[in-house]
Amino acid sequence: MNEGKKISLSLGSGGKISFDFVKKEIISRFSNPILDSLGDGANILNNLVVTTDNFTVHPEFFDGGNIGILSFCGMVNDLASMASKPMYMTMGLVIEEGYDYKKLLKIIDDIKNLADNFDVKLICGDTKVVEKGKMEGIHISITGIGLRMTDYSLPVKNYKNGDKIILTGTLGEHTISVLKAKGAIEFDGVINSDVAPLCGVIENLIKEGVRPKFIRDVTRGGFSAVLNELSYIGNIEILIDEEKIPVNDSVKAICDIYGYDIYSLACEGRMVIVVEDEEAEKAVSVLKDFEVSKGSSVVGEILSNDRQLVVLKTMYGGKTILDMPLGEILPRIC
Amino acid sequence: MNEGKKISLSLGSGGKISFDFVKKEIISRFSNPILDSLGDGANILNNLVVTTDNFTVHPEFFDGGNIGILSFCGMVNDLASMASKPMYMTMGLVIEEGYDYKKLLKIIDDIKNLADNFDVKLICGDTKVVEKGKMEGIHISITGIGLRMTDYSLPVKNYKNGDKIILTGTLGEHTISVLKAKGAIEFDGVINSDVAPLCGVIENLIKEGVRPKFIRDVTRGGFSAVLNELSYIGNIEILIDEEKIPVNDSVKAICDIYGYDIYSLACEGRMVIVVEDEEAEKAVSVLKDFEVSKGSSVVGEILSNDRQLVVLKTMYGGKTILDMPLGEILPRIC
Repeated sequence: MNEGKKISLSLGSGGKISFDFVKKEIISRFSNPILDSLGDGANILNNLVVTTDNFTVHPEFFDGGNIGILSFCGMVNDLASMASKPMYMTMGLVIEEGYDYKKLLKIIDDIKNLADNFDVKLICGDTKVVEKGKMEGIHISITGIGLRMTDYSLPVKNYKNGDKIILTGTLGEHTISVLKAKGAIEFDGVINSDVAPLCGVIENLIKEGVRPKFIRDVTRGGFSAVLNELSYIGNIEILIDEEKIPVNDSVKAICDIYGYDIYSLACEGRMVIVVEDEEAEKAVSVLKDFEVSKGSSVVGEILSNDRQLVVLKTMYGGKTILDMPLGEILPRIC
Repeated sequence: MNEGKKISLSLGSGGKISFDFVKKEIISRFSNPILDSLGDGANILNNLVVTTDNFTVHPEFFDGGNIGILSFCGMVNDLASMASKPMYMTMGLVIEEGYDYKKLLKIIDDIKNLADNFDVKLICGDTKVVEKGKMEGIHISITGIGLRMTDYSLPVKNYKNGDKIILTGTLGEHTISVLKAKGAIEFDGVINSDVAPLCGVIENLIKEGVRPKFIRDVTRGGFSAVLNELSYIGNIEILIDEEKIPVNDSVKAICDIYGYDIYSLACEGRMVIVVEDEEAEKAVSVLKDFEVSKGSSVVGEILSNDRQLVVLKTMYGGKTILDMPLGEILPRIC
């Protein structure tokens, strides 16, 4: 029935057409008492963790995901990085006039299904439409609110010699998938984005008694950026063993061909987790129980010596410094 | 020192340049313990009200305001509409590559100054940069979290005959100001946008013992949309007395020339407030004490007869129906 229907400026006008759209396509899907009250804001209770993100990836659909899945996963992964369980979300849509209606519904449905799976309630939102040609496709802003599961805040500041660094899987699939969708690179076969919600995994890890000191999802800036942020926050030296890093051979081959640094490629379903030495084995074992983190491995450790440095011990036995990526070398991938 | 400097893609990359930018231009300005902890999310406490909005107005600067002021005021006005006191905010910036650095700082500064004035803490944010030509200027997404000041939630559902409808000032200045900035209309002189934060006004109203049944800021869809939403929520008939509506003569003249319906023009600093008959006089008196709401007036009343209808008694004594505006008749104004 919605075949060929286009998003019009009216849809974001605040008038009847947008009011009806919100009732029909948003509220009926995400229905819950807070959303249904039709207020300008939403009453919720409790002590909590808040995160926000904007998603502007183009094209909006790529192998293994789309901007809606990305938005939800980005939000819950950020909350998980704060050791919190996602409870509520807000959603802002900025849509180009003329955008395909069915594509929009697909995006909204995917968010809704993930929200249902993880029992996250949409509590308020906003929809704007921008004149054709004045933006490209759709942007999504999302704010998440979660309840902290630990009795301390992440990231901690104090690390000690021998704390272990865990990476939950291979690197770079998301970026490669989006670059292919953009037509920026070509290869045979399919590499699916790694985009995935990791909040369930982290919740389980904490329930099992692991006390993480640092959790961070590997997004823009890649593995290098996360490690450098950790080094900055803890004022510590980090040693990474390249041999231990899980590798997707297809991604590796593409990086070799195109000259990409795999350590600065964004993922959307991978975490870096720091735990004390004695908890590392248990943590990896819990993580491996989940499909989305079955590739988990200890990839390095902390040398707590008041020097901010990330050192990579290469496959060939040499050592090199992993710097913070300087700036954007790739187009929008989230 | 920032003269001529342009926003680059690097600024939103998640790499060093963006990390430095955020530290230098965002965190140093909005500094507070929660923001300074550098987490992916923010720990906050308490029972609360949440609101979110995206702002895409173009041009970003217009007589009487800019997109930053608009974002902050929109957020606190939404929270005030829920009878809550703004406490925390998140801020997402999506910026076109090549955007003027000084303009960006002006926008951020204006938000920061308002946040300081109303003691609202920025607790997390996100910055993305989009390729030149793939969007226009800057978009801002903002989520606000506030503490409810009443022992009941707004809007209430039950209204009674004689409940009074208050409008806090003249209509349409914001839309006219933006249309002029767009070059869509021309006139001599200056009409400043009405954009203003009304949270302090509402806080005072409630402190003075008034128990509002409905509060809504007049934004997209204008006065007509707010009244029709009220009529829908309460399942009630509303009678508005046109003679009582505060008028800006310049705006009225421009509407007459260009054929705009003043009742569907967006404001960004006006509220519709419903109170019981016996509280109306006191409410107007409290509102008039503030510069931003000194034009407050009782403009109508509720006829609680299970019929959703908004009736306007015109200047000439006739009656006409104020419908929900159908869709966007005007370009982006927020």
